Amino acid sequence: MASVKVLLIGATGETGRSIANGLLEAGGFEVYALIRPASVAKPQLLDLQKRGVIVRTCDLTAPEEELAQALAGIDVVISCVGTTDQHTQINIATAAKAAGVKRFIPCAFITICAPGGIMYLRDEKEKVYNHIKQIKLPYTIIDVGWWYQIATPRLPSGKLDYAMTLANDELIGDGTTPSAFTDLRDIGKYVARIVVDPRTENKMVFAYNTVTSPAGIFALVEKLSGEKLEPKYIPEETVHKRVAEARAFSETYPYDATKFTPRYAAEYQLSWGIRGDNVPEYAKYLGYLDAKELYPDFKPITFEEYIQELLAGTATGIYTDRISRIY
Amino acid sequence: MASVKVLLIGATGETGRSIANGLLEAGGFEVYALIRPASVAKPQLLDLQKRGVIVRTCDLTAPEEELAQALAGIDVVISCVGTTDQHTQINIATAAKAAGVKRFIPCAFITICAPGGIMYLRDEKEKVYNHIKQIKLPYTIIDVGWWYQIATPRLPSGKLDYAMTLANDELIGDGTTPSAFTDLRDIGKYVARIVVDPRTENKMVFAYNTVTSPAGIFALVEKLSGEKLEPKYIPEETVHKRVAEARAFSETYPYDATKFTPRYAAEYQLSWGIRGDNVPEYAKYLGYLDAKELYPDFKPITFEEYIQELLAGTATGIYTDRISRIY
Repeated sequence: MASVKVLLIGATGETGRSIANGLLEAGGFEVYALIRPASVAKPQLLDLQKRGVIVRTCDLTAPEEELAQALAGIDVVISCVGTTDQHTQINIATAAKAAGVKRFIPCAFITICAPGGIMYLRDEKEKVYNHIKQIKLPYTIIDVGWWYQIATPRLPSGKLDYAMTLANDELIGDGTTPSAFTDLRDIGKYVARIVVDPRTENKMVFAYNTVTSPAGIFALVEKLSGEKLEPKYIPEETVHKRVAEARAFSETYPYDATKFTPRYAAEYQLSWGIRGDNVPEYAKYLGYLDAKELYPDFKPITFEEYIQELLAGTATGIYTDRISRIY
Repeated sequence: MASVKVLLIGATGETGRSIANGLLEAGGFEVYALIRPASVAKPQLLDLQKRGVIVRTCDLTAPEEELAQALAGIDVVISCVGTTDQHTQINIATAAKAAGVKRFIPCAFITICAPGGIMYLRDEKEKVYNHIKQIKLPYTIIDVGWWYQIATPRLPSGKLDYAMTLANDELIGDGTTPSAFTDLRDIGKYVARIVVDPRTENKMVFAYNTVTSPAGIFALVEKLSGEKLEPKYIPEETVHKRVAEARAFSETYPYDATKFTPRYAAEYQLSWGIRGDNVPEYAKYLGYLDAKELYPDFKPITFEEYIQELLAGTATGIYTDRISRIY
């Protein structure tokens, strides 16, 4: 069987690299990366090229015809654009349609949340989904829950700091709202199965590893580390206040994409921390297929395995090139 | 088995009466009608009451608590509010959730179209669907295609005028864009099955009778009537111009719901007449279940049967109390 030609947009980001790895490890794929001219020298890209990823250069904001050329001959486009680049996918999808792409995977890869005013980021994605549907482009939407890598709390000893981006030390309410969590590295493994699965065409899929709660994670870390954590208990009203403030701030003139970062953070807390949206039952209600049912043989990394790795000093930090550590 | 308590909103409208009839004929339902105090004397309502429909009085814009009281004990709410009342369903859905309603059927009942800027009416409905999903209320969305009753062209002899609302004499392009059509009277029969079917919970369903094209309908009418029709051929550019003008007009100050009527008409022509959205294949792509697959034993009224009725002088006109005939 001929290889499936998959082109990744945002291949050097965290989700993009997980997906590149997943595709390369699964085999059967010819993996392309669409790279802006400004990013061709990124070290993460050179690493992917060494492993066989073929680079095509094009700006995300290039004219449609140019984008369509860059997508020529591609079977599957997987978009992992950054949070503030969601709108660029409108033209990319139109170009993909023109290029005859057989399946378009828009940048979903977040927690479960209904559109219409809860999460700005979710609503930006919805505009892209609606455009895809209007141009009748075959698609799959893949959401993944919240990463282990940004859900594990810091230890008082500092022993885990080598792999921490955020302190993750807040518990909203009593911290027991259930939520789905996924090891970042498993996302690509799921995606490699989903994008060639006929059952997932024109469907939404929820691919996650486990359902627990922040309080459950804290308890597990305490048990495995032997250290006593000191969670910051945050009342729900504080989250609502953060959401209101971040919404007001993000909508101030002049427009600045970075103003939305606190809004993303606060609205995530609202959606999965308070509303409890990020669970498989709600995903099903919203029409998602459940990756656990699609792939019962898939063996995800457990949260305990990830924490053991962290404690052993062998885990890898994320966003290390982009975000200063803020604890 | 106890009767299922179904409450209809907009029971005296065309879709509402079809649904009331469908429920009453199917049996097994206790049928309620939520009626605004201003409408309790409508002759269509008295007819429904004679046939066993129980009236509950409440304004659609009443406070949520009052709406929840009006929905107390109801299993299924079916909303057929008017085109300009779509937004009232936001509070009604919230009240339905509070009242413990087991399934909410928002006012869909239109042609197939993706949300996001093609049809204003579709987008008004999308806001309601998103709200329903945010409050996690069990629902079913039922779309029905275009009615036979507004798709059949007038005869030059005037023989069909007794049952005509519009002349329906336009063919867009060559009139061959396929579209799904439904006899208004079959909608209620479909709905009576769908609302108690566990397979349709939290799903979209496309319930239609047949797929043909305006040109196909004209040919059928000519064959059965023996008269020669004189269709008005409308170029696609004319429809695009109508859409642009109607959009601009509807958005002028001050807000006036009636300004949207030409927009609804033009955008319908755009969606099903040009884009070809209103077909079962596209409905499936968008995630709809197909009522023909759900209910293979359902015997819909064929378009030919409807035209024969029209020619025999036994058909019933629609909107006769609301819209002056405009041909």
